[in-house]
Amino acid sequence: MMTKLYGSLEAGGTKFICAVGDEQFNVVEKVQFPTTTPDETLTQTVVFFQRYADRLQGIGIGSFGPIDIDKNSPTYGYITTTPKPNWANVDLVGTIKKAVNVPFYFTTDVNSSAFGETFVRKNVTSLVYYTIGTGIGAGAIQHGEFVGGIGHTEAGHVLVALHPQDQAKGFHGTCPFHKNCLEGLSAGPSLQARSGIRGELIAQDADIWDIQAYYIAQAALQATLLYRPQVIVFGGGVMAQHHMLQRVRQQFAELLNGYVPVPDLNEYIVIPAVAENGSATLGNFALAKQVAQ
Amino acid sequence: MMTKLYGSLEAGGTKFICAVGDEQFNVVEKVQFPTTTPDETLTQTVVFFQRYADRLQGIGIGSFGPIDIDKNSPTYGYITTTPKPNWANVDLVGTIKKAVNVPFYFTTDVNSSAFGETFVRKNVTSLVYYTIGTGIGAGAIQHGEFVGGIGHTEAGHVLVALHPQDQAKGFHGTCPFHKNCLEGLSAGPSLQARSGIRGELIAQDADIWDIQAYYIAQAALQATLLYRPQVIVFGGGVMAQHHMLQRVRQQFAELLNGYVPVPDLNEYIVIPAVAENGSATLGNFALAKQVAQ
Repeated sequence: MMTKLYGSLEAGGTKFICAVGDEQFNVVEKVQFPTTTPDETLTQTVVFFQRYADRLQGIGIGSFGPIDIDKNSPTYGYITTTPKPNWANVDLVGTIKKAVNVPFYFTTDVNSSAFGETFVRKNVTSLVYYTIGTGIGAGAIQHGEFVGGIGHTEAGHVLVALHPQDQAKGFHGTCPFHKNCLEGLSAGPSLQARSGIRGELIAQDADIWDIQAYYIAQAALQATLLYRPQVIVFGGGVMAQHHMLQRVRQQFAELLNGYVPVPDLNEYIVIPAVAENGSATLGNFALAKQVAQ
Repeated sequence: MMTKLYGSLEAGGTKFICAVGDEQFNVVEKVQFPTTTPDETLTQTVVFFQRYADRLQGIGIGSFGPIDIDKNSPTYGYITTTPKPNWANVDLVGTIKKAVNVPFYFTTDVNSSAFGETFVRKNVTSLVYYTIGTGIGAGAIQHGEFVGGIGHTEAGHVLVALHPQDQAKGFHGTCPFHKNCLEGLSAGPSLQARSGIRGELIAQDADIWDIQAYYIAQAALQATLLYRPQVIVFGGGVMAQHHMLQRVRQQFAELLNGYVPVPDLNEYIVIPAVAENGSATLGNFALAKQVAQ
């Protein structure tokens, strides 16, 4: 008898990562390719999954957004209003399902990652996963389910208090939608916009990291007060730098000021437990299993 | 046969409201008394509920906080670290349960209100209830359950972007715990701290209301992006003024800037549907019924 397989698609704005895993969610094969046109990218996606079609029990998709996750909507499964050229109103799920007719679970990339991170943590049923990259988003899990009523969360676009140095310099962030929003002030592009230097080239002891950490600590504060999760996970390259994690923990402690109890910060504000950026893939496998018949 | 009754206690920082309701959650009797010492106030509470002890199926309690809602904690049922004199570490549930041994549901006052507001709205399973009063708090419901992992939400103490006028005047709010936090900048006391005039005496067309609305609109933006609820309800005297509701809707629309779809703002940002501040009482009755044996 052939092993059952689960599929994972991480549909990112810069690359697509397709994978299949076995019943223990070990990766059997994983490929990635750049996100070009929807036609080309979805064709590559379909070709990958078709090779496993007879053994696939389901596919979990974590996508960049905004996306339509309302199963009663005529545009369910679509990427909706993204500013990314050619990708607005693309029927992501429908296009793949036409070629590979298995059950799908469709959610945001950050929700997939949150699910993967919850999966590997014993006794964790409430968790928030932030990605701090070229954009900022967060997926939240409560009682083992995704938080979200009429749609998915978009935690990168909340307003935050300006750091005094940004205030003094009149820097209000890089987001074209919102002045003073979290993403505009602390996603990757803000580093260069503020300093004129590419993030990778900025010294680890530069003051600018504390500005960045101030905003990320505000995100952790919001997540703490609005979700009260057991753990807050920060994914993305910026937070993989140990000094950043320490800066965020320290500023978070100052901002929270003991108002509500939280776990030991070394256990509470953390980087992903799943190695090699595998949180979303693992989450997608587990979500695929949920919908598998 | 005697009617079954459900109990409600709204344990507020300034007054306690006790009520019993019938199986249709009609109020049979409701009393209120000022919050004085725990001894005196809880004795009055017990005396009220004891009169109905033989018919009470359960009591829902919505309390000021912070409170301990972790059933595995040795201080479950306590008001914990409140700055209110004499009320820190008070065993609220335990004290009442010793005298009236029925099942209890223990949560925050804003969660009770959120539950009551959800109860009267058809097809609403995700809702946020903010109270804007001497303090600010919010209760959030997702999939019909309260949001909260290791504790209850405390949405009043998030940081917000300063209004340019507050920035110019160096006003950072009235919260003793946090500079620039929502509660410190837009709860009742901030009005007087900013203007020198008591809130009730400020003219409806004064600019200061737009400053207040700016912060409350940020709260609505946060709730929108972190919860994606079907409706956001604002309780409390300030928001009962129609001009404030309009100001908040308008500023919210500007801040969101169409980033994610939301319902018609007249249906989305609203005041309570339950009349006469009855949301929490109704919510408590419904919660009491949930735990009733």
